[in-house]
Amino acid sequence: MDSIQPMTYVGLVAGILTTISFLPQAIRAWKTKSTRDISLSMFLCFCVGVVLWVIYGFYTENLPVFLANFVTFVLAFSILVCKLRYG
Amino acid sequence: MDSIQPMTYVGLVAGILTTISFLPQAIRAWKTKSTRDISLSMFLCFCVGVVLWVIYGFYTENLPVFLANFVTFVLAFSILVCKLRYG
Repeated sequence: MDSIQPMTYVGLVAGILTTISFLPQAIRAWKTKSTRDISLSMFLCFCVGVVLWVIYGFYTENLPVFLANFVTFVLAFSILVCKLRYG
Repeated sequence: MDSIQPMTYVGLVAGILTTISFLPQAIRAWKTKSTRDISLSMFLCFCVGVVLWVIYGFYTENLPVFLANFVTFVLAFSILVCKLRYG
């Protein structure tokens, strides 16, 4: 079995933290149906950027970048949907 | 001069988009002084994760990951400060 570089673990923990961080925001937006203080520009721009990170992670075979951004996209997109729905 | 891999450009654009996306949110929070709909858990967790991404980018000599997350931290931290101040 190939040994995993120590920094890959740091990248995976970083990816897990920045990814799951969007979960409480998504839950809050869905539960409260209140997204007035959330910036539409932020989540539009962020979702496009995260899709590019997924492409980057895939083609450079960078597992932490790919996995983290794939899940981040799902969560950030759900917040974007809330913002578009609730204003 | 070394040639830059095409995917590095994708990573840089991804980094620029996900980084500048936090700017309109930071401006909105500072201007409106209203952050009720923003999740404290999200920005606490996100800031810790982004610091780890900076460390990962530095030690793996991954320029897009390092640069993007360095600036992202500054912006996300300013949103966290707003949230802690305005509730």
